[in-house]
Amino acid sequence: MAAAAPTHAPVCSSSACRAGICSSGTPFPSFRSAEASAPGWRRREPYPAVSVVPGSAPGAVAVDTEVDTLLDSVKWDSKGLAVAIAQNVDTGAILMQGFANKEALAKTISTRKATFFSRSRSSLWTKGETSMNFINVHDIFLDCDHDSIIYLGKPDGPTCHTGAETCYYTSVYDALQSSKPNEGRQVMTTLYSLEDTISRRQEEIVTEGGGKPSWTKKLLLDNQLLCSKIREEAGELIQTLLENEDQSRAASEMADLLYHAMVLLRVKDVKMEEVLEILRKRFSQSGIEEKASRNKS
Amino acid sequence: MAAAAPTHAPVCSSSACRAGICSSGTPFPSFRSAEASAPGWRRREPYPAVSVVPGSAPGAVAVDTEVDTLLDSVKWDSKGLAVAIAQNVDTGAILMQGFANKEALAKTISTRKATFFSRSRSSLWTKGETSMNFINVHDIFLDCDHDSIIYLGKPDGPTCHTGAETCYYTSVYDALQSSKPNEGRQVMTTLYSLEDTISRRQEEIVTEGGGKPSWTKKLLLDNQLLCSKIREEAGELIQTLLENEDQSRAASEMADLLYHAMVLLRVKDVKMEEVLEILRKRFSQSGIEEKASRNKS
Repeated sequence: MAAAAPTHAPVCSSSACRAGICSSGTPFPSFRSAEASAPGWRRREPYPAVSVVPGSAPGAVAVDTEVDTLLDSVKWDSKGLAVAIAQNVDTGAILMQGFANKEALAKTISTRKATFFSRSRSSLWTKGETSMNFINVHDIFLDCDHDSIIYLGKPDGPTCHTGAETCYYTSVYDALQSSKPNEGRQVMTTLYSLEDTISRRQEEIVTEGGGKPSWTKKLLLDNQLLCSKIREEAGELIQTLLENEDQSRAASEMADLLYHAMVLLRVKDVKMEEVLEILRKRFSQSGIEEKASRNKS
Repeated sequence: MAAAAPTHAPVCSSSACRAGICSSGTPFPSFRSAEASAPGWRRREPYPAVSVVPGSAPGAVAVDTEVDTLLDSVKWDSKGLAVAIAQNVDTGAILMQGFANKEALAKTISTRKATFFSRSRSSLWTKGETSMNFINVHDIFLDCDHDSIIYLGKPDGPTCHTGAETCYYTSVYDALQSSKPNEGRQVMTTLYSLEDTISRRQEEIVTEGGGKPSWTKKLLLDNQLLCSKIREEAGELIQTLLENEDQSRAASEMADLLYHAMVLLRVKDVKMEEVLEILRKRFSQSGIEEKASRNKS
């Protein structure tokens, strides 16, 4: 079933709000419909109120009153720009950072493809228009000052022009501590650093007479050991609830379970990002609860 | 044992590199020591080569040659600034965005506290110097163009001056689709949206004669059911390995296990961020493998 067109209620009627300072004391008030209490990654249909003007300059867009009000609430700098950061909705990886002007933000709102203003070319550009690696925008956030934007989206492929997943692959501390060049270590938060560590253990070569293999390597080489550990860790997590153990114990046992389960994912060649994408899709379709309730209770 | 001072090998001796375009074809090459093959979130001791100059203006810092070379590789804009984004090392949440000049980046490298250049006050400011909610920097990344910086760190408390965890709490689509004000919905990636959804289910009130409670609510109210589901899902994940089921099945079962385990965390009032912090600390101390190997094999 096609989604119903959203109701275009005025965002805020006050002139203060239009000027960027609402009477609520915040630069621009946040609004939420009942529907919007759904998780943040819920992807809605393309907002239909913004359209390309026929015959206008490439990339030019027309905006309706509500979008115009919102665009006016952004504190554009003296060049009409604001920082725009693209972030992977599933992994949280910061993919790239550019700048948006009013038209770039309007086009992103309308098309759901992350669009920026190129300062060197003085024109709009949609990430992916050449490489086809678009960033499919699920939500857009403004910061408290309304001068910084997050495009929260799912990339179709590598974002960086070098072919890297993210443009951020130069660690300052690595650079300062070594003179040896390397291929670059991408910025990674904890879960993905752990995933990367497990991957690197898989590449280790175990030789007879060599050093003792790491625990991760042992698990990677022994399916029976790995499975018994996952079962054991699940049991220990459950025990923290049934025996009313303290919170730190629950957190610790969850860490153990997550780590061992991620080793299994490595053996199966499955990425955490795939798991998170499944969870996002299930929840955005009210799927996981429905599925769980239907099949298993 | 105190960490040994890092070896200050020159970052790159080429003038091209100093000019921001290295002969390797990338603006500034990445370097890695053997130690740096450790996960990205490894926190090193404060880099000792940058120090405040006695008697100089507040915030002024002196830099040594290596740091100077690195600072010169950044493509500062006409005002001497680059975008600086602070990101939570464990959750991936984008906390805030500001600008850094050469001194702000040098001070961040040295002190490990995220430091910016305030354009309105024309001075350095370290996030937390008033609120004490510092952002403790674990690593710093530059993008491929060397004009954008990520401070990857752990915040001591809420980052936003409003008391919110992150400055990004205004959803553009929420604003366009409703006229009802709300307290703001923070930008959240999939794992934390799921955590938030589970929390909201816990707040639901189940009344006699009311609608059927959600599956999550049922799990939250019935420890025995929840524990039996976690055990079952762990078993199904294991089965994908032992019975050589396909990858999509493994990803799906991991999603099930993760969701049910996160419901248990909610009952125990434990945040995923706490779990991830444990994993980060264990791995950065080579702890989890050592612990797992010592206690359980």
